[in-house]
This record gives sequence, C-alpha cells and structure tokens, in this order.
Amino acid sequence: MSNNTENTVNTILESYKKHDLICRIDEDNIVNKDTLIKIVEELRRLLFPGFFDKNKVRSEYIRYLLGERLEFIQYNLKKQVAKALGNNENCAECERSEILAAADEIVNNFIQKIPTIREYLATDIQAAYDGDPAAYSTDEIIFCYPGVFAITVYRIAHELFIMNVPMIPRIISEYAHSATGIDIHPGATIGKHFFIDHGTGVVIGETTVIGDNVKIYQGVTLGGLSTRKGQQLKGVKRHPTIGNNVTIYSGTSVLGGETVIGDGATIGGNAFIVNSVSAGMKVSVKNPQLEYSPSPSQLKNNEYWDWVI
Amino acid sequence: MSNNTENTVNTILESYKKHDLICRIDEDNIVNKDTLIKIVEELRRLLFPGFFDKNKVRSEYIRYLLGERLEFIQYNLKKQVAKALGNNENCAECERSEILAAADEIVNNFIQKIPTIREYLATDIQAAYDGDPAAYSTDEIIFCYPGVFAITVYRIAHELFIMNVPMIPRIISEYAHSATGIDIHPGATIGKHFFIDHGTGVVIGETTVIGDNVKIYQGVTLGGLSTRKGQQLKGVKRHPTIGNNVTIYSGTSVLGGETVIGDGATIGGNAFIVNSVSAGMKVSVKNPQLEYSPSPSQLKNNEYWDWVI
Amino acid sequence: MSNNTENTVNTILESYKKHDLICRIDEDNIVNKDTLIKIVEELRRLLFPGFFDKNKVRSEYIRYLLGERLEFIQYNLKKQVAKALGNNENCAECERSEILAAADEIVNNFIQKIPTIREYLATDIQAAYDGDPAAYSTDEIIFCYPGVFAITVYRIAHELFIMNVPMIPRIISEYAHSATGIDIHPGATIGKHFFIDHGTGVVIGETTVIGDNVKIYQGVTLGGLSTRKGQQLKGVKRHPTIGNNVTIYSGTSVLGGETVIGDGATIGGNAFIVNSVSAGMKVSVKNPQLEYSPSPSQLKNNEYWDWVI
Repeated sequence: MSNNTENTVNTILESYKKHDLICRIDEDNIVNKDTLIKIVEELRRLLFPGFFDKNKVRSEYIRYLLGERLEFIQYNLKKQVAKALGNNENCAECERSEILAAADEIVNNFIQKIPTIREYLATDIQAAYDGDPAAYSTDEIIFCYPGVFAITVYRIAHELFIMNVPMIPRIISEYAHSATGIDIHPGATIGKHFFIDHGTGVVIGETTVIGDNVKIYQGVTLGGLSTRKGQQLKGVKRHPTIGNNVTIYSGTSVLGGETVIGDGATIGGNAFIVNSVSAGMKVSVKNPQLEYSPSPSQLKNNEYWDWVI
Repeated sequence: MSNNTENTVNTILESYKKHDLICRIDEDNIVNKDTLIKIVEELRRLLFPGFFDKNKVRSEYIRYLLGERLEFIQYNLKKQVAKALGNNENCAECERSEILAAADEIVNNFIQKIPTIREYLATDIQAAYDGDPAAYSTDEIIFCYPGVFAITVYRIAHELFIMNVPMIPRIISEYAHSATGIDIHPGATIGKHFFIDHGTGVVIGETTVIGDNVKIYQGVTLGGLSTRKGQQLKGVKRHPTIGNNVTIYSGTSVLGGETVIGDGATIGGNAFIVNSVSAGMKVSVKNPQLEYSPSPSQLKNNEYWDWVI
Repeated sequence: MSNNTENTVNTILESYKKHDLICRIDEDNIVNKDTLIKIVEELRRLLFPGFFDKNKVRSEYIRYLLGERLEFIQYNLKKQVAKALGNNENCAECERSEILAAADEIVNNFIQKIPTIREYLATDIQAAYDGDPAAYSTDEIIFCYPGVFAITVYRIAHELFIMNVPMIPRIISEYAHSATGIDIHPGATIGKHFFIDHGTGVVIGETTVIGDNVKIYQGVTLGGLSTRKGQQLKGVKRHPTIGNNVTIYSGTSVLGGETVIGDGATIGGNAFIVNSVSAGMKVSVKNPQLEYSPSPSQLKNNEYWDWVI
C-alpha cells in the first residue's frame, strides 16, 4: 500500500467507528438475500408445477420432484430462519439449540400451509381471468401478470410474518416489490379472489385487512394517516379495512386505520378517501373540473403553451 | 422419506389434483422465459449495434456479426414460437410439421420487419433528445432511458402480436414492465417519434392507438372504462385514440374506447379525461383548489399536524 | 448463407447506414453497464460493511478487506471513467494520457468522499427508522428499504456528477430506478436525514435542491414546468427548492424552478403545487369533492355500475 492508500483506509476505518449504526462488524450475517430469492423461486415452481420448470413435469415422477423441492426448501429456509432468529435482539440470550428447534418448527408449520396457499392462489388466478378482458388464458396470467407474482410472494411472506419470523418476510416482499412495483407489506391480511391489475405503484400497508373478491388497479395506496408520531404508532391499526367484492380504480388512496370500505362498494379512480364508505356505494371524484383553452376558434398555429411536466 | 415427509408430499399431491388450474403436469412447457429474455437482449444489440456490445463493433466484421445474431434469433425464436403455437388451444389438433412451418413463416416475417423497427426507433431517440433538457446526448438516451427500453421491447412485441403469436409478446412486454415500471400492452398501436419520460407507472392498454410525435410522462394511464363485464369485452376497442403531436403530463388518466384526443392537444398533469378533446386544445385541471393552514402568523412551534400518508 | 439470409443481412446493413444515429460502429465502447453495476454493489458493501457480505466481517481482517475493495473500485472505476471521458465530444481531441490522468484524479477525489457519503447515509437510515412505524429495526431498513438503496446510489452518482463525469452517473441512477421505481437525477442536491417511503413513482429532477430532514412518499414528483423548449432549457434551474423539515405526501407534484417550499412545511397527498409555500404552512387539497351514488336505500342488488379502469 502507498502512504496515500494507507491514509484512505484509515479514514474509512474511522468512519466505520464513528457511524457504526450502518456497520455489522464481528456480527453474524443476518440472512442471505440471494438464498432467500432462490427459495422463493423454488416455492413458486412447487406452487405452480410445470409452469416455471425447464422440463416437462411428468406425473410418474412428480412425487420425487416434489420430495426434492421440499428438501431444498426445508434445508435452506431453516438455516435462514435460524439466522434471522439469532439476530433478533430479544433472542440475544437464546441458546443455539433453542434457535434451531424454533426454526425447525416454523419451517415445518410453513410447509403445512402450502396446500392452503395453493387454494388461495387458484382463486386469485380465476379472479384475474374473470376480471380482465385483455387476458387470453389463465396460463398467460400465471406466466406474465406482475400482480400474480406479487400476490404469490405476499402469500408466502404473510405465513412467515404471522409466525413472527424477523426480517425474512420483508426481504422477500421487497424482492417482489422490486420486480413488480407492487409493495404489499407481509403483515397485511388478504382474502381469496384477489386481483391487482397492472399494479405499478400499489402500496398496501402493514395493518390493512382485505376481504374476498377485491380488485385494485395500478397506483392504489391503502395507507395510514400520519401524525408525525413515527415509531410510537408501531402495532396500532393504521391502515384501512376493505370488505368483500370491492373494486378500487387506479390512483386512488384509501387511508386510515378506522376507514372501512363496505361490501360491494366501488371507488373510482384518483380519489382520496379518508372516511368510511357504506356497503354497496359507488364513490367517485366529483365531475372532474377541467379548463379548456384556447377555444379552437382562437387558436393560431403553435401559439398554445404547456403547463406542467 | 420419514412418515412425516410422506404425508406432506401426499397432501401437496392432492392439492395438485384439486387445484389443477394452476398445474401443468404432463403438458409440454409453454415457452422458456429465460430464452425469450436472451432473444430480446440479442435483438437489442442487433437494433443498436455497438451500444450494448462488450467489444468494439468493427465495420469490416459487421456482416459476420450480424449473420451470427440473425442465426441465434431465428433458431431460438422459432423454437419458442412453435412451443407457444403448440400450446394454443385452437392448435390442439395441429400436426407438428404444420406448427413448425407456421413458426418458420412467422419468424421470417418478423426478421423482415427489423429495418422498419429501426426506422421507428431512430425517430423515438430523436424525440427524446429534442424533448428533454436533462438529456446530454442521444448516446445517453439509448444507454439510460427506461422509456427507450420499454418502447424498443414494445416495437418487437407488437410485430409478434399482430402475427397472432400467443403468450410471447406479453411475456417480453412484462420483462420490460418489470425493468422500467412502464406497462405497454403489445396490442397497442404507436406511431413514430414517441417519447415516454421517467415512465414509472405508465399503462397503455391493448386497444390504444397513438399517432406520431406523442410525448407522455410518468404515471399516465391510457385505459378502459370498466363496466364489470370482464371477458365479455375481449376484442372490443376499450382504450383511447391519441392524435399526432399530443403531450400528456404526469399522473393523468385518459380512459375509454371512444375517447379521442385530437392532433396537437396538450393535457395537463393529474387530469382525469373520459371525454374527447378537440385538436389543438389545452386541457388542465381547473385551478388546483388548495387549503392553507394555519396562517404563518398563527403558527406556534411544532403545533401543526400532518394529514395523510 | 442462403440467398435469402444474404438479402436480409444486406437490408439490415443498409438500415445501419441510413439510421446511424442509433449505431456505434467503429467507435470505442462507451462504458460497460455490467461493470458499473459491480462497482456500485462493491461500493455498497464498502459503505455498509457486514450487511451485504457473504461471510462475517471480522475486525481483525477488515483493513485488508477494505484495501482489496478500494483496489477493485479504483481499478475498475478509473477504466470506466476514462472510457466515458474519451467518448465525450468535448474531449475528442484529448490525448490518451490526459484522459487517464483526469480519470485518476476523479476517482481519487471520489474515494476521499466516501466518509462523507457514509455520514449522510447514517442520517438517512436514522430518519427512516424515526419516521416509519412499520420499521422493526435499522438493520431491516438497510436490508430491505428501496428508498435507502435509491438514496445510496444517488449519493454515489451525485459525487461523480459534480465532477462532470459523463454518462456514468446517469447509468447507475437508472440501475437504482429500475430496481426501486425511484428516479433521482444525479444532478439533484439533497441534504441529510432524507427519507423516501415506499417510493415507487418518485421523480426528482436534475436541478432540484432539497434541505435536511425531508420526507417524501411514493408517487411524488419534484419536476419542471415545461414550455416545449426542450434542449433550450439545458442548465436552467427548472425544478423546485425544498427547505428543511418538509414532508410531502404520496402522489403530489411540486413543479417549477422558482417554486420554493419553506422550512417546516407539510404538503398533503395528491396535490399539485406550482407556487411557493411559506415556512411552516400545511397545504392540502381542498376537501376532496366526492360523489356518492346510489344512496344505499335506493340500491338494488347488483345494480350499481363501475366507472373507470
């Protein structure tokens, strides 16, 4: 090392000491994001057999393929869950063997949930097909629809979240968010036949509750009303409750923990809802007030001007 | 296998039988998404030679490089198109040789379209440079602009879509959607000199028609008016028609199959347009009604409160 | 080659000549995007030691790990910066040795900025934790929050931008944009304690200036007012100035180079701001005018209709 490099190294080492909030030196790795992504992809192949496989899935071998997949998931997910539990501050005192036993139980319970996850996903696919005239087949939906990918990952992450696994549910949710632009917090509760079309910009907050047969479009936020209290609000129900058979069109925000959208309600696009809506209501932004100028008769070539980016 | 694993495997196998909508067991693979992405990337190198290559592209060798690229695309795309055609329900009865011949013809026709695709893309790049003061060079635009990537993939996907290739156009469109947040259905018809700036959240529906010299910004939806009819609307023109020389600013939705935006019109940001707009008009949301509180004179330190997430 | 292939090759070669705006034949490669992404990822591991490493980072070896990382970054970034400088039109006449010396100086200066970048990032992480009740720990924020990734990449890209490195700042910014849906131009100036929650659809323009302790949500645009002048506006301050302690809620656009949001102001969701806001003000869209129909008493089963996609 030149003196120069030596100095640079020393300065950065000082920075590591000074701002140790963003260092994890001499601490165990939390989890491995790449491994978690592999687990999610393998789970997707297991949930939708034959769709994301390289080769044809044959019925005479499916038992063996499935056994192999389960082994991969169990082995790797256990290791990651143990790491996440071991890094949990509350578990600082835990014995290594206790952590491994807890991880074992969590992963076994998770695997028991797979048939239920599939049952829900089958209804989600049907809802997408029924609701979207641009869909050519349910195969196309499973293959292509970002909403389906986001919901699949959500249904996996949610099961781990309700078993109090730290970190992992959020990491895999953000993997789906990055791929789809759809941000579903793993803490949200979502019923059957759920459909998100297009999806970019959708945000569903941690304490949201959604019934069956709900359809939402791109840019919908199911969010909180903030009062600058930040961490003081942890655990409080801050996000809305959406009933059954509700449709919310693009760009609309529904906000607040006490806001309830009743069964069968329809919320139009670009609306801003902070109060409850009764069952069966149709709510939309009052006739969009638009300004037209200049009138075509006044218009000279190239004289009009623009307004906004 | 332990008894426990045996039980789990059996339960999941039962789930495969019960919810077979989301299984493809004993069926041929539809298409291979990874291969399709490789084809798209190779097509991009072919369309913009020298931009996305590892090494300098030299004029004395370009003929050979091009021949190699065409061979790669022809060979792989044919295989994928044949798979997609073979999985089409209407083709269930087709002979294998007929499918291969059809795939051959489609891919040959597609390759003949490459010069036209390049001609359109050259106008799109020029439009981006002319329209964006933040652009430092056309090279930067080709390299960096997500809108350019989305339009490139759209122009490829659209050619396959109008030749009735199943699945593939939508899969590659969703690849671009995932990378850019821009969701252009391959069925849309889009003229020359098309520019999408920033782009996250843009949605352009299947039956949209867009003229030449159109510029749209992030969060613009060119969508349908829904009447809960879902699949009954398949094939109906549900999305708007945009004339030549139209600009639509960020966050605006233009909706409905009979909605026509005339030549030279300008639509301001955050508007909600469900009626036609005549040529040359400027339309914007009527003076944005804002509420200010408290007045600065009344304000005590830290007394103000927040409103919404 | 068959005659047919020969013809196709010739037609595409003609297209290369005709539309050479989108060709770089016989020109040096600009930069290598894959290498730039590797540099960004290595920088992230250097900035947040122990978070994104495969193995535990141990204090007794950290000096060597750090030295190795710096060497990787210096060697590769210099090569890329030299390429970018060599392709700059203004540098067409530069001697090779001058370019290498300039690249050397830029990269050395950049590396001196690493402690400052870390100092800012530590405040950003703290701001995210303090501001978001859904955050369980600062570790979770560093690992999962797309806003943190976007700001990290912005803080790297900005340093290169202000040293007038062509192309590279924008390419790495678009890498973060693609992963997060957050589009921060590297030219923007952003203070400490900056927090972007959720983030999909956020756009921050090139000449934006943001103070300390600013919090923005998904779908916020800090943009320009367009007057169709395109490239004529290059270099002009076109984007707003945001003071200290400002919060801007989701879906709001603040536009224009002379628009100033004063210290401590709060801007509600879905607003459209083209005028300055004084310090301490709370601004929100005037009571959202909503239309409810039919009234629940009139409602017959299934008679309601939808409005918009």
